[in-house]
Amino acid sequence: MKAYSELSREELMELREQLLAAYEEKKALGLNLDMSRGKPSPTQLGVSVGLMDVINSDSDMKSECGIDCRNYGCLDGIPEVKRLMAEMMGTTEDHIFIGGNASLTLMFDTVSRAYTHGIMGETPWCKLDKVKFLCPVPGYDRHFAITEHFGIEMINIPMSETGPDMDMVEELVNSDPTVKGIWCVPKYSNPQGICYSDETVRRFANLRPAAKDFRIFWDNAYVIHHLYEDNQVEILDIIGECEKAGNPDMVFEFASTSKVSFPGSGVSAMATSHANLEDAKKHYTIQTIGNDKVNQLRHARYFKNLDGLKEHMKKHADFMRPKFETTLKVLEEELDGLGIGSWIKPLGGYFISFDAMEGCAKAIVAKCKEAGVILTGAGATFPYHNDPKDSNIRIAPSFPTPEEMHQATEIFVLCVKLVSVQKLLES
Amino acid sequence: MKAYSELSREELMELREQLLAAYEEKKALGLNLDMSRGKPSPTQLGVSVGLMDVINSDSDMKSECGIDCRNYGCLDGIPEVKRLMAEMMGTTEDHIFIGGNASLTLMFDTVSRAYTHGIMGETPWCKLDKVKFLCPVPGYDRHFAITEHFGIEMINIPMSETGPDMDMVEELVNSDPTVKGIWCVPKYSNPQGICYSDETVRRFANLRPAAKDFRIFWDNAYVIHHLYEDNQVEILDIIGECEKAGNPDMVFEFASTSKVSFPGSGVSAMATSHANLEDAKKHYTIQTIGNDKVNQLRHARYFKNLDGLKEHMKKHADFMRPKFETTLKVLEEELDGLGIGSWIKPLGGYFISFDAMEGCAKAIVAKCKEAGVILTGAGATFPYHNDPKDSNIRIAPSFPTPEEMHQATEIFVLCVKLVSVQKLLES
Repeated sequence: MKAYSELSREELMELREQLLAAYEEKKALGLNLDMSRGKPSPTQLGVSVGLMDVINSDSDMKSECGIDCRNYGCLDGIPEVKRLMAEMMGTTEDHIFIGGNASLTLMFDTVSRAYTHGIMGETPWCKLDKVKFLCPVPGYDRHFAITEHFGIEMINIPMSETGPDMDMVEELVNSDPTVKGIWCVPKYSNPQGICYSDETVRRFANLRPAAKDFRIFWDNAYVIHHLYEDNQVEILDIIGECEKAGNPDMVFEFASTSKVSFPGSGVSAMATSHANLEDAKKHYTIQTIGNDKVNQLRHARYFKNLDGLKEHMKKHADFMRPKFETTLKVLEEELDGLGIGSWIKPLGGYFISFDAMEGCAKAIVAKCKEAGVILTGAGATFPYHNDPKDSNIRIAPSFPTPEEMHQATEIFVLCVKLVSVQKLLES
Repeated sequence: MKAYSELSREELMELREQLLAAYEEKKALGLNLDMSRGKPSPTQLGVSVGLMDVINSDSDMKSECGIDCRNYGCLDGIPEVKRLMAEMMGTTEDHIFIGGNASLTLMFDTVSRAYTHGIMGETPWCKLDKVKFLCPVPGYDRHFAITEHFGIEMINIPMSETGPDMDMVEELVNSDPTVKGIWCVPKYSNPQGICYSDETVRRFANLRPAAKDFRIFWDNAYVIHHLYEDNQVEILDIIGECEKAGNPDMVFEFASTSKVSFPGSGVSAMATSHANLEDAKKHYTIQTIGNDKVNQLRHARYFKNLDGLKEHMKKHADFMRPKFETTLKVLEEELDGLGIGSWIKPLGGYFISFDAMEGCAKAIVAKCKEAGVILTGAGATFPYHNDPKDSNIRIAPSFPTPEEMHQATEIFVLCVKLVSVQKLLES
């Protein structure tokens, strides 16, 4: 195929007519397909069959530490679930605090605590004139929503195939004491599916922050969420690397079973240094008597250990892979060589990130919506919903069926083409 | 029996010898009895048998609104559990927000939101020089811990048999714009078991706060926790009364199933006006994608409705009543007429509140501990752990067996006598 930029005005106009006709045809199908959120499909939820049978009224409700899981107590989680989450996160259970049903809430609470009380005796962020966070972009909208909520200024950091631009990260973190944090999804990043290289992780661990209360918010959301059994990425353990580098307290790591067991009723965990844990627990003991231990016990007994988790994740991958492959196949077949978009083929995670020609993302998302295909709002992958190039679009293939993803992607590529032609004609 | 104050010095000294001998005998038993927290006993937890069987892998996981409870979504709770909690709290489901496993966390979050962002557009409390809360005393230590955590100045309000001293409440709330809240446990109060009279509730509803963001924190923790089927107290619905009084937004009401189903894995709820709900949800949507809907569904299907809850609570009462009665019997038999302590006979809730002679509470708790009986720390029922009279002691009869409560109370009364005699001899 010829790149669109090489087409003459006449060719573009003719192409537009063809595309418009095809678009109207698709629109007439009256589809209603949602690719907007990283949400497992109803059938995929069946993967966790049996989870609801692990605990019944005949079960021994005692944790291995002797606590009755039905009763009050146990602020930081029962030992068996701490061990499970530690194995999943590649750390040890002494680093773990077990949260409620969502790591998002653990992240919110961590920022909120820093805002109201400060981290480990430092000034509460609400008392400072300026607090900044670095935000590798494109990134996860709910991260940015938390920092925006607390009035924290967000600075875009470009991503490369090995992770965030570490020159820029080092320069900002090591020189500016108002830079207090950075949001990272180090493995199968949301939305690009990028995995941080060993060098990137080590450069993170070796930061020399100007702010004593600078923290890396390491959201390891897709830590075991591989698509391919024979092509799995492993990244370095940030907690261990930070310890080695003499920065043991510099990272809060987060993970959950939301996309392992059930999204609405999983178990979440924070992994961090002993000093950070003690600091956090002083606050958590005011906020809660402890999270749901029955659900913790259910998860610990169902998955047993890392092997159990890995076996389980293969079943999820079997659901996810065809959707990713269908989507990528349509993108390749329809857009390769046209010069109107680029994407990365992910090996795990929940998303495909698409970069359209500058100034086209919003129009593409709107066109898709008109034809019944719901995408995450353009700009959502950037702080303040502001994609300076109006280029990035997040595709979430998990919820629809593979057939629906095929249909949806066909409409998507059509909209990409149509909007790109329009853009070229206007320029 | 003669009141201790009427005994001669010689009589007191002789009595002390007798009491000391008896105390040493008890101490030699080497008991280990915990009356410190309002925590159901292991056997009492068996009341909720079947709860863990309601949802299994064959269950329809759809809420009546069509949402798959396993998946993401539904910020404020599924309709069937909202209805259940509304019935329990004596309000309507449009007032309800469903939280996680603890109403304590809902209360913490509500104060935290007011601190970081302000209530309904008012100045965030973190930006104010002074924020005050009224604290009816004795009260619940975890309430006071939340307000202390946020640097909120707490003002003691005396309790009477009809609720807090409303003259004092009205004077302070209606004149001082730095008074932003009051902690209330309106039914079977913690620790006295006092129920607010209709007049008290109406005076609350008719407050004319100097602060627009003044809120009543109405912790209806024991709303259906009666001890006697034929002697149940009902209090007025504060939300309805506030609406009638033209103060619809003045109250946040809280409740949970912690002492209905399982303390560690129940369902919590906040009930408040539509405007407060909208304001809270703007924040919660940043903090969570929604709480555990599988557990919500489990509770809704197990209890079904208010009748189901009431039937269930009778079984709890059957466990609790003997413990309360044993404790009260020993108190009456051993202390009536001695003039060294007073208590109220509760009709529900989880506690008995004991008022010793001034300056004796700490010493009594310490003496009990020495003999293997753990009580809530003296002073814990007051803000800053400071009981100005060092008089109040909270007794929690729920965890030990009736036999153990008998033993523990015998030791308790012995310690009360011993410390009182000592006090009288010193004065």
